[in-house]
Amino acid sequence: MEQIAANRAFGGWHRRYRHRSQTLGCDMVFAVYLPPQAEHGPVPALYWLSGLTCTDENFMQKAGAQRVAAELGMALVAPDTSPRGDDVPGDPEGAWDFGHGAGFYVDATQAPYDRHYRMYTYVTCELPALVEAHLPVDERRGISGHSMGGHGALICALRNPGRYRSVSVFAPIGNPTSCPWGHKAFSRYLGEDQAAWRDWDACELITRNAGQGEVLPILVDQGTADSFLDEQLKPEVLARTCEAAGHPLNLRLQPGYDHSYYFIASFIEDHLRHHAAALIG
Amino acid sequence: MEQIAANRAFGGWHRRYRHRSQTLGCDMVFAVYLPPQAEHGPVPALYWLSGLTCTDENFMQKAGAQRVAAELGMALVAPDTSPRGDDVPGDPEGAWDFGHGAGFYVDATQAPYDRHYRMYTYVTCELPALVEAHLPVDERRGISGHSMGGHGALICALRNPGRYRSVSVFAPIGNPTSCPWGHKAFSRYLGEDQAAWRDWDACELITRNAGQGEVLPILVDQGTADSFLDEQLKPEVLARTCEAAGHPLNLRLQPGYDHSYYFIASFIEDHLRHHAAALIG
Repeated sequence: MEQIAANRAFGGWHRRYRHRSQTLGCDMVFAVYLPPQAEHGPVPALYWLSGLTCTDENFMQKAGAQRVAAELGMALVAPDTSPRGDDVPGDPEGAWDFGHGAGFYVDATQAPYDRHYRMYTYVTCELPALVEAHLPVDERRGISGHSMGGHGALICALRNPGRYRSVSVFAPIGNPTSCPWGHKAFSRYLGEDQAAWRDWDACELITRNAGQGEVLPILVDQGTADSFLDEQLKPEVLARTCEAAGHPLNLRLQPGYDHSYYFIASFIEDHLRHHAAALIG
Repeated sequence: MEQIAANRAFGGWHRRYRHRSQTLGCDMVFAVYLPPQAEHGPVPALYWLSGLTCTDENFMQKAGAQRVAAELGMALVAPDTSPRGDDVPGDPEGAWDFGHGAGFYVDATQAPYDRHYRMYTYVTCELPALVEAHLPVDERRGISGHSMGGHGALICALRNPGRYRSVSVFAPIGNPTSCPWGHKAFSRYLGEDQAAWRDWDACELITRNAGQGEVLPILVDQGTADSFLDEQLKPEVLARTCEAAGHPLNLRLQPGYDHSYYFIASFIEDHLRHHAAALIG
């Protein structure tokens, strides 16, 4: 694990690391924000999963999250959104919604993607183990994300009871089995048999988990002027599913907000405090 | 003046506009953040001048300034850093520290730059007139900036007593006549006669203004780990000059901070409050 950048921020440190990922079979870069409190001992961490086309940098540069993380004593960990490198197959037509920058946080089962596209295992296992072994970050984990990363945060939390203590999302692809982005990605990463897709769909998982024990309440912010709202994001499906399953959901429709980081920055403080209540108390 | 983007942010609006600049002889883009208070009447504005290679977008996306601007009821206005377009001559070797993205906020006198590179007049006259005519922004103006834009903010304030009510800067090129960036830019924009450079050097202007009436106190933040500190920025020259001239200066050396927007984001709130005290009271 090699440090490739370090910037002082809000009394703590933003750092970027490169490492060889065994899970993904390629070099990966991730970013960490360590708050000032990390100088005195391990702190909890919020894992942030970014959306289509992003890298580790978008959230760290644009969300304005470090100020509140420094106040609360919470680390932020931002992985990349897919395996990378010349050896990693991308979209055959070079599209932005599949392949590089669009790993969808699943473990692919279909060639040629199954060799590298195992972002789910990377994000839930390899990356936290690496972070917790080498940095002053402990096992108190929250998870959040935006759009494709909102989908990722939801499935990571829903598939791993006990592994995360809190979850929140911005404009998530909450029901990928019913939208074009999800169909394109899942058919290629997971195959044409849609039965295999259900393990990677938040709404399917919420329905499946109903009555199976304690669940994490979900905080969702969704802009009403989001250009992807009706075709891709469908928050009403997530809301109906949670209601039917008795899953606690706080869905906040934010009037006039779009899909950009200006939207995320406007509400990230509420999300950090939501996580801090579970991680720090 | 054509609106090319609009994003809701912190209850207000981030907007980008394109317009034909008479001063610069080209199309220009600038960004504005209008706080929620602007819906009820004109608000004061902080003009932000960015550094080398930047456009209107860097500050708006990375500084995290909108949150406090929304609280205070202050607009933010961010112009581009140079004239742009195929007709506008850039650096002959394509360097990043001259030409496109590096207008240095002067009015060039040397061909071929004198036709377009008139960023000083654009920033101090044309842009405020445009903003104040078309947007709910009044004549209460503050000015701030970073690096090359810190130089710009200082000379705009120092050359125009009464036009701005407040000034603050991050890591400014405070004495461009004595550093490589300044030498390169001034020799090409202003000619080899260094006497002509003095009108565009903050330290020269501070010395010249001494005893000439009321001056604006200057707030400066400067990171001690800034890689441009010794060769280009030289805050000690600014400090000595202000002391000799009796010019009020609050120079804060921030230990371990570098030249990045992580540094700016960490201290932008203090700057906005510094401006609000003068603009709003």
